[in-house]
Amino acid sequence: MTRVLDRAAIAAALADLDLVGRIEAGFAAYSAGRCNVPPVGELLMETGEVHIKYGCVTGDPTYLVKIASGFPGNPARGLPSGNGVMLIFSQQTGALETVLLDEGHLTDLRTAIAGAVAARLLAPPDIPAIGILGTGIQARLQARELRAVVACRDLVLYGRDASRRAACRADLAAMGFVVRETDDPAEVARACRLIVTTTSAEAPLLSAADIRPGTHLSAMGSDTPAKQELDPAILARAARVIVDSRPQALLRGEAHRALAVGAIDASCLDEIGEILLGRKPGRRAADEITVFDSTGLAVQDIAIAAAVAERATAAPALARSLGGD
Amino acid sequence: MTRVLDRAAIAAALADLDLVGRIEAGFAAYSAGRCNVPPVGELLMETGEVHIKYGCVTGDPTYLVKIASGFPGNPARGLPSGNGVMLIFSQQTGALETVLLDEGHLTDLRTAIAGAVAARLLAPPDIPAIGILGTGIQARLQARELRAVVACRDLVLYGRDASRRAACRADLAAMGFVVRETDDPAEVARACRLIVTTTSAEAPLLSAADIRPGTHLSAMGSDTPAKQELDPAILARAARVIVDSRPQALLRGEAHRALAVGAIDASCLDEIGEILLGRKPGRRAADEITVFDSTGLAVQDIAIAAAVAERATAAPALARSLGGD
Repeated sequence: MTRVLDRAAIAAALADLDLVGRIEAGFAAYSAGRCNVPPVGELLMETGEVHIKYGCVTGDPTYLVKIASGFPGNPARGLPSGNGVMLIFSQQTGALETVLLDEGHLTDLRTAIAGAVAARLLAPPDIPAIGILGTGIQARLQARELRAVVACRDLVLYGRDASRRAACRADLAAMGFVVRETDDPAEVARACRLIVTTTSAEAPLLSAADIRPGTHLSAMGSDTPAKQELDPAILARAARVIVDSRPQALLRGEAHRALAVGAIDASCLDEIGEILLGRKPGRRAADEITVFDSTGLAVQDIAIAAAVAERATAAPALARSLGGD
Repeated sequence: MTRVLDRAAIAAALADLDLVGRIEAGFAAYSAGRCNVPPVGELLMETGEVHIKYGCVTGDPTYLVKIASGFPGNPARGLPSGNGVMLIFSQQTGALETVLLDEGHLTDLRTAIAGAVAARLLAPPDIPAIGILGTGIQARLQARELRAVVACRDLVLYGRDASRRAACRADLAAMGFVVRETDDPAEVARACRLIVTTTSAEAPLLSAADIRPGTHLSAMGSDTPAKQELDPAILARAARVIVDSRPQALLRGEAHRALAVGAIDASCLDEIGEILLGRKPGRRAADEITVFDSTGLAVQDIAIAAAVAERATAAPALARSLGGD
């Protein structure tokens, strides 16, 4: 019997979930070597591109296949460019248990929750303001999810485009934040001790001289070899550079860029899962600069999908079932 | 709006479809170089294994992702070891249009229809009897689908296990065949001019001396480097060795085995799509021995899935829809 959850059913299932704990367990499983995640499949077409991520935590009840796509022509049609679906199968029988018609939302959300995990482990004890760079969906979700782990509700928002910035500000205000706007990233660095970057920039927005002692930065935007939001000198100056996956950080994201110019050495990289396993410390001093470089792991998808599916099992009215034999 | 078709809805959609024509168009598109099919994804777990096949015919309305699994512990649970699902997405927007909860049935069926295509193109004009080696689901489906392209209803069935053979005989008789059973593959070769092998044998069942002039053999069972149903000397003696994919035939199936022992040269292999495109001839003489070596192509999955989805569009009552936003 396969269950199908649409966006509304997924939203209902998400309402009561402790996703921070689930994503943390996923990162820990990854760094403990318990994840079986083959290389990403890729289908490149003239009209768009598709990535297929799949894998499991060994011994879990289920395995996951995620299909995520980007179609650049969609906005001209009034559609979001990104789309996606997650499929949850039994690791015991291979049966398709749950189809999550999330249209990419769960990927956005698991990325936001990785930011909250990093803030919980690495943010300084006193945060005068949260800084957010970027005004898209990820800027909104990062701010929303941070509320569970950070008491601060003052926020400085950077964006280049004034109208997009104003729209984002309104959404953040509705979440309970007191928001100040700026078109200068350095102003964010001056005012904030927890900074989250969510742009698709391909050149640094923040430079090392801007960053104050005792700042934590979560670089969420750069997930390809080309994207970059932070000056490599920030990583060189940081007491700790934490990544989601050491092998992946060598190939993409901020650490990759800093390694390429010799600003840091690969031996300085720790995984966030290693902190969660107690194998590496979190923040050690209030005046340390720390960086979390997120490139995105399949185990985050596995964790969030399993959490939603389990919640739907506990509250079956959320899902519609389709009979098998 | 995503539609979900379960086994019953798929069966209803299949009732009126000309799948031979659709699979032929798929083979032709493949040999014309119009298929975009990346390497197969593979997830190997202790409990089972999963293969992810995906791709499209360039310019088609849709692309396909197929997830197929084999879990050897299933039969002890009263479940089939194989399972599967096919997902059809728009090639224009990436939207998930149709979920086919076929549990692997469409893969079985597209394999059977490849046998029918080969028989249409390569079987001799006079067939005293059809020979089937093997007594599983593929033996039944091959016989069933051959009825659309071959007038002969006399059939010789080979299987090792008497009770499985008797059960298969009963099913074939119900399809309108007059069936004779045997436990000697050579007897099939003596009596039949159209022979379809559907076993998972890893050593030849038929040898070259058994095969009469004017025989066509479709080797459907061997789809891995290890499996083998035909003596390589049969391929050496054959006037034509037709494969579904020349690159794939170098790596798996009967041609692969015959090439490995030097029985044939790769230059002798023609693709079935090349015959359909008119670039290569089909059967040229009544007394030729011809071999079709099927290893299975994603384009067959693409073709059958698209046909089922289009039929469901034409008869919307077949599908259940799940709302988007």
